Amino acid sequence: MAKEIERKFLVASDGWREHADKGTELRQAYVVTMDNRSVRIRIHGNKWARLTIKIGKSALVRNEYEYDVSMDDAKEMLTQAVGVVIEKRRFRVPHKGFTWEVDVYEGALKGLVVAEVEMKRETDLPALPEWLGREITGDRRYSNQSLAINGRVEEQE
Amino acid sequence: MAKEIERKFLVASDGWREHADKGTELRQAYVVTMDNRSVRIRIHGNKWARLTIKIGKSALVRNEYEYDVSMDDAKEMLTQAVGVVIEKRRFRVPHKGFTWEVDVYEGALKGLVVAEVEMKRETDLPALPEWLGREITGDRRYSNQSLAINGRVEEQE
Repeated sequence: MAKEIERKFLVASDGWREHADKGTELRQAYVVTMDNRSVRIRIHGNKWARLTIKIGKSALVRNEYEYDVSMDDAKEMLTQAVGVVIEKRRFRVPHKGFTWEVDVYEGALKGLVVAEVEMKRETDLPALPEWLGREITGDRRYSNQSLAINGRVEEQE
Repeated sequence: MAKEIERKFLVASDGWREHADKGTELRQAYVVTMDNRSVRIRIHGNKWARLTIKIGKSALVRNEYEYDVSMDDAKEMLTQAVGVVIEKRRFRVPHKGFTWEVDVYEGALKGLVVAEVEMKRETDLPALPEWLGREITGDRRYSNQSLAINGRVEEQE
């Protein structure tokens, strides 16, 4: 079991693009969801797939279990999703010792761009790049689970 | 993905015991559940563990995905169950070309004994041993998911 500690922001400008890698295409969907836990299937670059179980209510820290699964299983699970299949391209952007992940949504959620930084400890203080917008850590409307089931958040800056 | 086709009965007498193997201790719990799908963790004989995702409403046929997981992950997931942890001993009982599984529940569900037969095709007609009680195929109150969350069914023959 791994702990997940992260902060999450909307993205205000394209400043991140000059430092980004070429990105990876992700397709993911929720296989089973409850209020405080979920099972997600994610296909990385149409090459490999992983099942992730997340348990816990805390926004900053949740229990996470991950297992590799076959592409066949993964593609079949996508067709049985709870909510929509989320399509996005994930870019890695290094910034002052931390790696930010910028998710550019496509398909049903096109227009949404979100940046996350993963920390080793809750006390870590990553420097905030100037292209960040409003912080949405803990705003469950922006969780992929909510985006898949309830769609895009209306009020965006 | 595998299809699961089975019939399920209460057990009326101990007649099955003379043909049974020595049985395997199972501990299992639901990690995430929805009305028509679930994720279950099961520990077999305190030796190995498997995660099972079941999707679909049909009582006879459901989509099923299974993955081996570490005992550490499994034991940790048991402590985060939705509902109670189910403890039972599963015996295999051959009868006229089919193998029946007799589950003798312990712990919170002690007293409940259920027999299942798995079929290759929905048209298979397994001979019914005389120690069977009422058929409960499709009675969702007797699903392990319902037993874990709602407890034991009151009216039993």
